[in-house]
Amino acid sequence: MDNLIGEFFGTMVLIVFGAGVCACNTLTKSKGQNGGWICITVGWGFAVTLGVFTATTLGAPQGDLNPAVTLAKTMIGIYTFEQFLATSVVQILGAMAGAAIVWLAYLPHWAETEDKAAKLGIFCTAPAIRNYPANILCEIIGTFFLVFVIWMIFSKQVGAIPPGVGPYIVGVLIWAIGLSLGGPTGYAINPARDLGPRLAHAILPIAGKGGSDWGYAWVPVVAPIIGALVAYGVASALSIF
Amino acid sequence: MDNLIGEFFGTMVLIVFGAGVCACNTLTKSKGQNGGWICITVGWGFAVTLGVFTATTLGAPQGDLNPAVTLAKTMIGIYTFEQFLATSVVQILGAMAGAAIVWLAYLPHWAETEDKAAKLGIFCTAPAIRNYPANILCEIIGTFFLVFVIWMIFSKQVGAIPPGVGPYIVGVLIWAIGLSLGGPTGYAINPARDLGPRLAHAILPIAGKGGSDWGYAWVPVVAPIIGALVAYGVASALSIF
Amino acid sequence: MDNLIGEFFGTMVLIVFGAGVCACNTLTKSKGQNGGWICITVGWGFAVTLGVFTATTLGAPQGDLNPAVTLAKTMIGIYTFEQFLATSVVQILGAMAGAAIVWLAYLPHWAETEDKAAKLGIFCTAPAIRNYPANILCEIIGTFFLVFVIWMIFSKQVGAIPPGVGPYIVGVLIWAIGLSLGGPTGYAINPARDLGPRLAHAILPIAGKGGSDWGYAWVPVVAPIIGALVAYGVASALSIF
Amino acid sequence: MDNLIGEFFGTMVLIVFGAGVCACNTLTKSKGQNGGWICITVGWGFAVTLGVFTATTLGAPQGDLNPAVTLAKTMIGIYTFEQFLATSVVQILGAMAGAAIVWLAYLPHWAETEDKAAKLGIFCTAPAIRNYPANILCEIIGTFFLVFVIWMIFSKQVGAIPPGVGPYIVGVLIWAIGLSLGGPTGYAINPARDLGPRLAHAILPIAGKGGSDWGYAWVPVVAPIIGALVAYGVASALSIF
Repeated sequence: MDNLIGEFFGTMVLIVFGAGVCACNTLTKSKGQNGGWICITVGWGFAVTLGVFTATTLGAPQGDLNPAVTLAKTMIGIYTFEQFLATSVVQILGAMAGAAIVWLAYLPHWAETEDKAAKLGIFCTAPAIRNYPANILCEIIGTFFLVFVIWMIFSKQVGAIPPGVGPYIVGVLIWAIGLSLGGPTGYAINPARDLGPRLAHAILPIAGKGGSDWGYAWVPVVAPIIGALVAYGVASALSIF
Repeated sequence: MDNLIGEFFGTMVLIVFGAGVCACNTLTKSKGQNGGWICITVGWGFAVTLGVFTATTLGAPQGDLNPAVTLAKTMIGIYTFEQFLATSVVQILGAMAGAAIVWLAYLPHWAETEDKAAKLGIFCTAPAIRNYPANILCEIIGTFFLVFVIWMIFSKQVGAIPPGVGPYIVGVLIWAIGLSLGGPTGYAINPARDLGPRLAHAILPIAGKGGSDWGYAWVPVVAPIIGALVAYGVASALSIF
Repeated sequence: MDNLIGEFFGTMVLIVFGAGVCACNTLTKSKGQNGGWICITVGWGFAVTLGVFTATTLGAPQGDLNPAVTLAKTMIGIYTFEQFLATSVVQILGAMAGAAIVWLAYLPHWAETEDKAAKLGIFCTAPAIRNYPANILCEIIGTFFLVFVIWMIFSKQVGAIPPGVGPYIVGVLIWAIGLSLGGPTGYAINPARDLGPRLAHAILPIAGKGGSDWGYAWVPVVAPIIGALVAYGVASALSIF
Repeated sequence: MDNLIGEFFGTMVLIVFGAGVCACNTLTKSKGQNGGWICITVGWGFAVTLGVFTATTLGAPQGDLNPAVTLAKTMIGIYTFEQFLATSVVQILGAMAGAAIVWLAYLPHWAETEDKAAKLGIFCTAPAIRNYPANILCEIIGTFFLVFVIWMIFSKQVGAIPPGVGPYIVGVLIWAIGLSLGGPTGYAINPARDLGPRLAHAILPIAGKGGSDWGYAWVPVVAPIIGALVAYGVASALSIF
């Protein structure tokens, strides 16, 4: 139960900072408008860092914030399948809460912004070139490196990373994934990060909003799950557990 | 008393580096003019890091630099109410001193810069869209995440962060708040950070200055206090103390 | 053997993140297009950080990812010459694998991008001004500071850097080399980083690709080896081993 | 003697990375041209980090790289006055060597670049608005915060910062000074950093160079010394030694 509270608030913090940086970069009259890709990628990186601290403190020492990561850890026995399902639901709810907070923080800016796709892009990802097989492949690759490199960082060969430094290094990993693999699909690499805010976009009375692009919504759910399973397969083959 | 000296110099350092990055980005002929949102947000983040080191060394181990943070800690018994008031006054005075130093460092640039609002914006915040309820809500949200996440970082579940790393992580938090929640109001999230330099703006003989926008001045004082109290309420409900 | 597996996957990770950041910055319709030099240099810096974690965990505690670094360590007796050769081959193969993954991640973007030289620039380096003696000198200088400063960081005088922090500091070194010495030749400073992806460029069916510029290919192989040997010479003269 | 070797190579590394980032940002056809203020300030920050590692490893545990810092430490008894003078000379010589290396690394780019002032600006600082009293004041303020905050970071109240982390935090301090106080004079804050490369500029056969602006050269020598002495005075008054 503590684990679920931790994952809820951790994912909420993740989305407040992550969707927040997209709002700041995109919305008309925002002081950070057009801050650029460096802002987006640092912002999402540290969003994960701060979400992990939050989850850890509130009872979720794993601090996954991501059903794909939770699934990978389920494969190695850290969670039961029921715990995986409950954790995933809670992560999606936390992401919805975080998206609602960003909507409130930028309340007068939604009506000022004309571009409906830009407003949706604050909540969830959309591909730069819509091509489902390619988009799925890109999200599989991104999530593979997310999960695989997390295991590379927190290994007994590396040793015991001091308290506080681990969440920072994970943030650096997310920052790097955005910089390198974020170009084609906006690096969802996390079903909760995409589905939760997309649900919030559909529900909230956002001024001048368009559709929630449900035709694409399954890609950033399914592909990260596949990517995490591939990471588990490769890591197992390399005997790292 | 040591605590007050530490908070004075710590907040002074905070504003030298924080207001300094705004001056560098804004003033005509500055070598860093138009460095952009990444510069602003990194600059304020590390301003807090360096202010915390300063406060810690000079006798203020809490290193709040912020009446809203001090109030939140008063709620959990770290300060008495009298100590909170004295600390807040000293933080405002330190912020005034820091603003005066920035004015001196950029002395020939004020007359070169025509835009009066830009010059005021180096000292204190102004909303992108003037809408008091929305501006208050935004500052409440920003300060909530400031105070709440500080408690998430420095918890026994995270463990003892090594010396020197803690102030850096707090700087990362401020950097992330700016990137994500700074768009609508310029993230005062600190009554002293806003009121002190605004007073300095009113007092100092800044070349070609305009008014100090006192009509907005209460927002970045009152809203951060509310945000800190809400953070205390939520954190208490989650039993983190 | 473990060492070879570690160097293979470590160099693969290096190139996924490094060539990835170039693809993200360059390819038409990428969400990170024109992110700028700060993105390129941070991206390559953290690519090394994450590659070092990967190599370390999979059995290569040195985490070189670079034949020039391996050669320098061969000079001080950490590897035999046969081990140096085997490690170099594996590093090149890992780099090829990483480049292929980047090609897949950005699959629909290659046909959208007209500029053949820009596409090649995602895989390997090219000089800003083609002048072989000057290009060689620049790569020698860059690699010298790579190898020399690595020894400066990991010395008994500095002391035992905590687990996890070392790879981060090495990433900071790469970030700094890019910012300062990357302008003339794009800082290959690593034969495997350049030759592996260049081979991948020649082999892969990249849409609308041009030639692989084999006339320049020897420069970023030979010059880094010279730079590493000079670093060994200077470091020996300073008695740091 | 070891101390002098360490300060020589440390300051050389500082200038290779620091003047290097200016060359990369400024010179025509450089791949990092117009990378912007964020690149300049990160580059100089990490230049100091890497210089400190170098100095420490080669026998200079203080790792000053800066006569103003050495003078401040002379005031508190870490050096004799003779050691201060010898160290300063060696720091200037190291800075000259570093500048010569940057000239070599960018060899074909000097002739391509027309702007003589821009070329000089890679070696040494020039004020944005030439006003000697104001320029001196700005450099005093910058150096004051450099020296004062170094003492704030490395204090017994903060505690023992882990190996490797200290040089990184000092780099963050330099990064922050550039972002905040670098606008008016380009933050020399170090007599060796300015005078050494200026001498190199005067001596080296740089293609199409102009004058070395000796009329301003005394400002970034004298003002940092004053700033360091003021920092010593304030720190003494605060009883931090």
